[in-house]
Amino acid sequence: MAAPISYQLEHSDGRARAGHIQTLRGSVPTPVFMPVGTRATVKGMTPDQLAAVGSTIVLANTYHLNLTPGEKTVRKMGGLHRFMLWDGPMLTDSGGFQVFSLPKLAITDKGVQFSHESQGRKVLLTPELSMAIQEDLGADIIMAFDECPPYPASREDVATANRRTALWLGRCIEARTREDQALFGIVQGGVFPELRARSAAQVTEHDLPGYAIGGVSVGEGHELLTSIVEHTAPLLPEDRPRYLMGVGLPEDVLVAIKHGVDMMDCVIPTRYGRSGTIFTFAGKYRVTDQNYRHDRFPLDTRCDCYTCTRGFTRSYIRHLISTKEILGSTLCSLHNVRFFHRLFTAAREAIVADRFAAFHSEFLAGYLQPTRKKTHKKRKGR
Amino acid sequence: MAAPISYQLEHSDGRARAGHIQTLRGSVPTPVFMPVGTRATVKGMTPDQLAAVGSTIVLANTYHLNLTPGEKTVRKMGGLHRFMLWDGPMLTDSGGFQVFSLPKLAITDKGVQFSHESQGRKVLLTPELSMAIQEDLGADIIMAFDECPPYPASREDVATANRRTALWLGRCIEARTREDQALFGIVQGGVFPELRARSAAQVTEHDLPGYAIGGVSVGEGHELLTSIVEHTAPLLPEDRPRYLMGVGLPEDVLVAIKHGVDMMDCVIPTRYGRSGTIFTFAGKYRVTDQNYRHDRFPLDTRCDCYTCTRGFTRSYIRHLISTKEILGSTLCSLHNVRFFHRLFTAAREAIVADRFAAFHSEFLAGYLQPTRKKTHKKRKGR
Repeated sequence: MAAPISYQLEHSDGRARAGHIQTLRGSVPTPVFMPVGTRATVKGMTPDQLAAVGSTIVLANTYHLNLTPGEKTVRKMGGLHRFMLWDGPMLTDSGGFQVFSLPKLAITDKGVQFSHESQGRKVLLTPELSMAIQEDLGADIIMAFDECPPYPASREDVATANRRTALWLGRCIEARTREDQALFGIVQGGVFPELRARSAAQVTEHDLPGYAIGGVSVGEGHELLTSIVEHTAPLLPEDRPRYLMGVGLPEDVLVAIKHGVDMMDCVIPTRYGRSGTIFTFAGKYRVTDQNYRHDRFPLDTRCDCYTCTRGFTRSYIRHLISTKEILGSTLCSLHNVRFFHRLFTAAREAIVADRFAAFHSEFLAGYLQPTRKKTHKKRKGR
Repeated sequence: MAAPISYQLEHSDGRARAGHIQTLRGSVPTPVFMPVGTRATVKGMTPDQLAAVGSTIVLANTYHLNLTPGEKTVRKMGGLHRFMLWDGPMLTDSGGFQVFSLPKLAITDKGVQFSHESQGRKVLLTPELSMAIQEDLGADIIMAFDECPPYPASREDVATANRRTALWLGRCIEARTREDQALFGIVQGGVFPELRARSAAQVTEHDLPGYAIGGVSVGEGHELLTSIVEHTAPLLPEDRPRYLMGVGLPEDVLVAIKHGVDMMDCVIPTRYGRSGTIFTFAGKYRVTDQNYRHDRFPLDTRCDCYTCTRGFTRSYIRHLISTKEILGSTLCSLHNVRFFHRLFTAAREAIVADRFAAFHSEFLAGYLQPTRKKTHKKRKGR
């Protein structure tokens, strides 16, 4: 079948790539950050607020939506886009990542047997079931059902996961029936370069519209993540989008972009936002800190988001987060998602201008400066 | 001092009144519903969403803001309007209503000694302190510090509360210093008509820009509330706004309007909204009910709010509320606040058209119909 999405490379700078993913629901400039709408809502934001901060493609979680309201309900209601009123491109994961973090798993070649967290009902998640659920949900991009080993895991366990991932990918391809969804394969291999290479070879054997690097964001840390991405990204075809799953922090994100990753997703901006951790180009900080009690500035004086331009002060937002007011979660999530989009846009512009390496080190110099608070205050002349 | 607000009666229909309250921050058509921004935020809504649903004047709670972030912080940040970015008129209560519901109170003529819920620190709330806090907060309308007896309470206890309410009102008037805030007196008297009359006489002895009926919404129920309002409202001057505190449900609200009340506040629209209880002119219902699982309609097909016009289905909102997603609280709160504004606007229009009694019974016939769900489904031809 003809792929419902395609990738156009616009410009390379080293290995870093600026491009576009064309979808049936519009074009997505890459590299792109995808906010996570776990249960068909990016926590704390309306779809209009999401569009307003510059989101172009949104992720939702198969595991959570299978649990509630159920994929049959979503299908009956017209699919995920209609259900959550997001007209742009969407991506669903396979459900595997969440399932592999559950206790009392039984993994066989057939699939993964587990008990749903809150309901206790037993489910056997298979490649076929994951495809069926994702077809019911109806996202534009769907992910293959893979085995994601924990970290750390033995070479043997990772090799077994590789074998199943390859086996299951074949079954995913067989099982799917919709031609309007793009299926991405996922490369596993843990922290072992030769197993990454073997998995990449197995997965790219299939002509798919995109490929992902999975098995990361499982506790391996920045250094190992860096070497995995550095080693694995070049093994993926240049004419397809490359998606690094579940990453992450700004420092991780830029390393991934450097090595040619095009798509990333993470709950960090919203999860951190709800507890008052604020991302800025001058570093991240906790707005709940005592020293913001009487702070009249917006979260980030250089940000163009609603929260920062409307006049909400750090003092007010500190109060809202401290008292667990909903509006605090909304304002901080909105700002943080906007920060990630600004970061990706800035990275893209740097690639197009052939200055990604300089941008990367300039960003880190600003972002990781240890004296952020003082510098910031000084800069404002207070 | 000249009152910073004034009331203009536009039209009477029986005792029901349509008018305007002129404030330094704009004109408020009455009768008016005031949403409650307990901690300087109407829960779940941005100030722009609040304005968009038609709110004209917002209440905030002195007790909660004294606790956190503290009135000194609010003052330092430019006052409550600037702090929460609400440019329209605001009203703060005296702190008394919350305090009287706390355990281990010691009430004397001096004031009320209590321990702050979460911090445990001892506070002696006096008329003078209430005025000082409300001046720091800076609302347009501030409330006298009164003694609100519980329900039920003995005639003797209510008489004592009356005496203190009168004593404290004199001290509030003495203590205040700002000329740009309108101080309202509060009538107590419990469920005893002669004590209501005595309190009304005591309070209206002072020439104040507005008067409130307090000591309600303490568990007395619709019948007693009705007789209190029927008896007390006519004792208040016709050329001043009358404010019934903490009311309430649509059926209570309309009785109050019928008897000449101009202002009401209540947390019901937002509190009920967060748990998925939805107000419509055809009655209230719980969107979490099983029968909305596959319901494609908006919360209220006749509503003009964002939630109802943007395309969010009951099915989706049911899912959001069931999974405690923030967006569910926002969407339902927004709808419910809009419902209350529509109800008050419709009541006002009926008064102006000399058909309030007819409107009142038409509304109740629709709102209290026991077969709402079936009727509703039928009406939609499903």
